[in-house]
Amino acid sequence: MKPRAPSAIATAAQLADGKLDATTLLTETFARIDAVDATLGAFTARLPLSTALSQLPALKGPLQGLPVAVKDIFDTRELPTRYGSTLYPAEPARFDAAIVSTIRRAGGLVIGKSSTTEFAFLNPTATLNPNAPGRTPGGSSAGSAAAVAAGLVPFAIGTQTGGSVIRPASYCGVTGFKPSFGLLPTPGLKCFSWSLDTVGLFAASVPEAAWFAEALSGQALALAYAPPAKPWVVGVPDAYPWAELSPSARQAMEAGVLALKAAGAQIKAVTLPGWIQQAFDAQDVIQGYEVWRSLAREVDEHPEALSDILRNYLLAGSKVTPAAYEAAQRTAAQSRQACTEWFSQFDVLMTPSAPDEAPAGYGSTGTAIFNRVWTLLGVPCVNVAGATGVNGFPMGLQIIGAPHADRTCLQAADFLERALKAS
Amino acid sequence: MKPRAPSAIATAAQLADGKLDATTLLTETFARIDAVDATLGAFTARLPLSTALSQLPALKGPLQGLPVAVKDIFDTRELPTRYGSTLYPAEPARFDAAIVSTIRRAGGLVIGKSSTTEFAFLNPTATLNPNAPGRTPGGSSAGSAAAVAAGLVPFAIGTQTGGSVIRPASYCGVTGFKPSFGLLPTPGLKCFSWSLDTVGLFAASVPEAAWFAEALSGQALALAYAPPAKPWVVGVPDAYPWAELSPSARQAMEAGVLALKAAGAQIKAVTLPGWIQQAFDAQDVIQGYEVWRSLAREVDEHPEALSDILRNYLLAGSKVTPAAYEAAQRTAAQSRQACTEWFSQFDVLMTPSAPDEAPAGYGSTGTAIFNRVWTLLGVPCVNVAGATGVNGFPMGLQIIGAPHADRTCLQAADFLERALKAS
Repeated sequence: MKPRAPSAIATAAQLADGKLDATTLLTETFARIDAVDATLGAFTARLPLSTALSQLPALKGPLQGLPVAVKDIFDTRELPTRYGSTLYPAEPARFDAAIVSTIRRAGGLVIGKSSTTEFAFLNPTATLNPNAPGRTPGGSSAGSAAAVAAGLVPFAIGTQTGGSVIRPASYCGVTGFKPSFGLLPTPGLKCFSWSLDTVGLFAASVPEAAWFAEALSGQALALAYAPPAKPWVVGVPDAYPWAELSPSARQAMEAGVLALKAAGAQIKAVTLPGWIQQAFDAQDVIQGYEVWRSLAREVDEHPEALSDILRNYLLAGSKVTPAAYEAAQRTAAQSRQACTEWFSQFDVLMTPSAPDEAPAGYGSTGTAIFNRVWTLLGVPCVNVAGATGVNGFPMGLQIIGAPHADRTCLQAADFLERALKAS
Repeated sequence: MKPRAPSAIATAAQLADGKLDATTLLTETFARIDAVDATLGAFTARLPLSTALSQLPALKGPLQGLPVAVKDIFDTRELPTRYGSTLYPAEPARFDAAIVSTIRRAGGLVIGKSSTTEFAFLNPTATLNPNAPGRTPGGSSAGSAAAVAAGLVPFAIGTQTGGSVIRPASYCGVTGFKPSFGLLPTPGLKCFSWSLDTVGLFAASVPEAAWFAEALSGQALALAYAPPAKPWVVGVPDAYPWAELSPSARQAMEAGVLALKAAGAQIKAVTLPGWIQQAFDAQDVIQGYEVWRSLAREVDEHPEALSDILRNYLLAGSKVTPAAYEAAQRTAAQSRQACTEWFSQFDVLMTPSAPDEAPAGYGSTGTAIFNRVWTLLGVPCVNVAGATGVNGFPMGLQIIGAPHADRTCLQAADFLERALKAS
């Protein structure tokens, strides 16, 4: 693991107090990216340093000019926008996505675009994994996870339709936060699936992720650490319908459970209810049906310019009938209703963030099987870094909150992160 | 009222059989628009006729090359896209909105963009109302309603966030259909409110609207008329928390009730439950909060380029707290749950589509108070034309269906439309 830079929260406080100079910080940030990114491949485009510096004085807000990377699935007016596809020229889009304006309003500086798999699906980027050499950083928010993992930026924005925030965060050993559906604005995001696409973020730790999320959303999410008034009750599934646990996942879960118990939490064994499997299946039906419509022009007019993996998925999506889609949407609605009551037996759920450590090589970005159902349900999820798999590479633990319980989810993730460090 | 062109369904059948030539039809359509639209102002941009004709041979599908107008709130690659705002140059967008590709896949030809109020809010367009001289066509889908009302195109696409399909349809005396949330794809629509923006459509009659909706969605919506197996039960509210009925609305409702009864339907007096008022209020909270984020760049960088009415609404939206927004979203979710059971006492609901006939003059596009709550609930709504207000101008009746009951909603609207014609 790379040595950690000082907390971005502390840096922002120093900037606010005038103890640190934003110009110096930004210049150093750019120098670090220059030194590293030709190899790392986390960025697809960057502002010229002079442009970035000229924007600093106008920035007001809690982020104090801190640099942010935004996944190149979002439209930007000042930076080329390509959605990870050669179909789009390296030209700016017509307007800034709402999340870009939101970052600016919070005083943040979008210094560049981070790499995304093609239209945020599965075709890999050229990005490396700073914390697992020779292994994929995951996807689709590859560049955002890698940029934060390498310490190039304190914060980055990603998106998740299946597992595109939590999975790369797990593989790269950083914090990933997929908030409740709708907490962060989607306009200007190149749509894959309008019922599922969720804006998320990356940071170096849970408190930093919570602080960044509060700065962007205005919701009271930032954490002031205090020992819990009563013990956390953490649900741990006894099995998963989509996979058996790999040795790495088992090792990480055991580390998490031990650390939580040692810190005073209660572990509650949970059997995932039957509707979870139905929701899992519904996620793929909805995603396939919607992407066949979202990427209609691309597949109708330029099928040859798409990767095989995407084109084949689109063709499968074209076969989803409206009736099957409607049934899947009904399943989704029923699952979301069932979810609130089901969560009342524990504070949060803990599962592996991904099936395993990052897969070796760069041919696959891994799979979203441990994330899809939570994306469909729209519940908050945090990847907590700190555990490792059998090869010593990062193997994240996913804390999943009840509907709209973003703050509780982040608090429990913070508790787990501290417990893992203490263990 | 203008004389009605032959049903578009019949025209499509003639095109399919070779009894009608698509080239001739399109040439005549363009000539009619040339003759009328300089005054009417329904279109903001059109394909050159030669371009349109060159696209005909490639079109396969039920629409058989029939011309369609698309509201200029959608991105188009071949036509200028301005969102009703001078902020955007008269240039094409980067890609076609998904609804444009969907129309093409159904064999339709998007011949032009129809006028929209500024970013689909309340600032009027220069469009006239073909069926109410000297009166607004309504908004925000003004051009789409007017183009169909004038018989220039058989079909047009609009959007509704509050009442932007049903209201202009009411004022212009055409059929407007706002389907269930998500039935038609939103990607490439300039977002006002991501929780509310709904794609809808206009046609000259209910069967044509249903047929067009089926062609686009693949859902079985087209109507083959058959007398109902058992009498329709139509709920009619005894009062509305947002307004008293105007004399015109009362006159239209009485005509509707009489016609329905004469045709054999049962009318059931209904008291709107308390959560309807809460949902009504929640709609404005959600819309205000979201548009402050969706149009962030526009208001942050070019406030002077926005109309007063929009700028003031955005500033009000900026004051909606995240806590108020979350509470409104919770209200919305609860209302959607309550809605299904509440609808079990009747087949559909009938209300006025708008408070009154189209307001005189062009200073206001009217208000969405009779539509907002149904948009929030995401339930299907049809404006049925055929009744008139006290001045003899169109005064629509709104048929509202249960969640996801788009087909039932269209069938009942068809029944009402026939009953009004027979009365």
